[in-house]
Amino acid sequence: MSTNVLRTADGWWVVRGERAVPVATKAVTTAELLADRAAVREAAALGEMGTAVADLVPLPPVTTPCRVVAQMTNYRSHAREAGAGGDIPTAFFRKASGSVSGPHDTIVRPPHVKLLDYEIELGLVMGACLPVGTVVEERDLPSYVAGLVLTNDVSARDVQLTRTQFYESKSYPTFTPTGPYLALLEREDFAHLLNLRLRLSVNGGLRQDRTLADMIVPPAQALTVLAGFQTLDPGDLLLTGTPGGTALKAPPKPVEKIAGLLPPALKWQAFFASQERNPRYLHEGDLITATITTPDGRIDLGEQRTLVADTDQNAQ
Amino acid sequence: MSTNVLRTADGWWVVRGERAVPVATKAVTTAELLADRAAVREAAALGEMGTAVADLVPLPPVTTPCRVVAQMTNYRSHAREAGAGGDIPTAFFRKASGSVSGPHDTIVRPPHVKLLDYEIELGLVMGACLPVGTVVEERDLPSYVAGLVLTNDVSARDVQLTRTQFYESKSYPTFTPTGPYLALLEREDFAHLLNLRLRLSVNGGLRQDRTLADMIVPPAQALTVLAGFQTLDPGDLLLTGTPGGTALKAPPKPVEKIAGLLPPALKWQAFFASQERNPRYLHEGDLITATITTPDGRIDLGEQRTLVADTDQNAQ
Repeated sequence: MSTNVLRTADGWWVVRGERAVPVATKAVTTAELLADRAAVREAAALGEMGTAVADLVPLPPVTTPCRVVAQMTNYRSHAREAGAGGDIPTAFFRKASGSVSGPHDTIVRPPHVKLLDYEIELGLVMGACLPVGTVVEERDLPSYVAGLVLTNDVSARDVQLTRTQFYESKSYPTFTPTGPYLALLEREDFAHLLNLRLRLSVNGGLRQDRTLADMIVPPAQALTVLAGFQTLDPGDLLLTGTPGGTALKAPPKPVEKIAGLLPPALKWQAFFASQERNPRYLHEGDLITATITTPDGRIDLGEQRTLVADTDQNAQ
Repeated sequence: MSTNVLRTADGWWVVRGERAVPVATKAVTTAELLADRAAVREAAALGEMGTAVADLVPLPPVTTPCRVVAQMTNYRSHAREAGAGGDIPTAFFRKASGSVSGPHDTIVRPPHVKLLDYEIELGLVMGACLPVGTVVEERDLPSYVAGLVLTNDVSARDVQLTRTQFYESKSYPTFTPTGPYLALLEREDFAHLLNLRLRLSVNGGLRQDRTLADMIVPPAQALTVLAGFQTLDPGDLLLTGTPGGTALKAPPKPVEKIAGLLPPALKWQAFFASQERNPRYLHEGDLITATITTPDGRIDLGEQRTLVADTDQNAQ
């Protein structure tokens, strides 16, 4: 059974149902909390006492700076809508960790961004060092992954497509809402990962709804590929890709072929003009709600609720 | 006049000509050294005493982990050879800081990489926090940039082109040789940046040779664009792009148009087959030498000498 941990300005909490118990720890960073599992267990043993969760203001349960690495095109449903061919390489990119924001913080659209999109993603929080060259077998996953978080890989599509590198388009402040809960997993929880269901709605309308069974490269294999070139440390975050249902849809093949003959500036102009008529992109006042859970509730990352705004309403 | 600083297993040194004087500091990280400029000045005042530089084994003068951000296509000469169109966006990507290696360390080719390429780049080492939203005017540059380093943005072209995101292809261990010197600049040195000349040779044959006058987006403007979405901190590293002369050359336009009609897998197969006949890619035993200096020697980042090998000869 997983243990849900919440972070507030006062520190760390263990959540049981509607109540939260403070964790008696000096841990400030996520890595430090993961090194003090005894304190988490003590708080968990206190059961459903403590404070009402509804009275707490959650911060992202992953502290920054940390490495935020993300997997490109990793669900079959999203690969189809993004127009990816049959042969999809396993690729990674970075997000600046300054983009990580709280699970109820406003997502702020930079003024120049016209095509603001959402991407619900399961985040893996590392619990141990992953040295270069590590081969992570399915059974090794609990030795490296301490827990899971719900993330939204918010994306400025107009910036993403013209820059070719995804880094800027996904790194603006508030572009990685994270939480509310860090679900610390027990070894037996890992057998249930494929049952995790990701759901994201905009203004109550369901947009994304898939289980991890739709995933192309699952976590153990992704970590093996990643360890082929880089190190991860405790508290680092790997986003594992988004399922179908984003606002962005690739243009149909014939349109794409014809557009391929245009100079790049004209091609993007035409594509963006068509996309601006697409009502699915995010606008000021939109409310995004998202959950990731197993059907039996064994793993439940809580509900993320974020408003979209054109100006920063997080600074208080 | 700039001050050259060197790092070894014993600590930090100030270099004057052929001699190096130890810096009396507790600084371990580059950020800590930058916060102890008094100690650097004291060592510099001792003049040409101390140890022979030739007897020291230099480590990269930028300590890790740190943020390593890199600018895409930022010299006109490289934009032409890479086949970039007229409208080049200012784009950034990340390199894993685990790729940073010493200025005389071996560059290790991963077994699956066939098209190993070099990219000499001027590295800016941050001396102050750059918050999101900062506008860096030319005259502000000395307030943010503490110094310069010579870097090689080693690139696995076959990985880079098929993954579309540059992250993996440029992040393998030893793919960012850095140093030997961290040149700490005085305010008046910044007026000489455009005179910096980057030169890289392979086995004595000159491959890259340009000054910063060929740069598209110069440092102050690049930092402004970068601060449009992310924060940098002291000790972070920005690579500012490479001039023309890399092994990679874009195929001529007609070939590219025809290849565009092939399925991706076939297209890459054909392109890589043609590239494997290109003798400019790096192979085991190749010796890369590189320098970045002003003609008058006011700024001189030292000589980087790296061998290419198929197995790791750095681990001792």
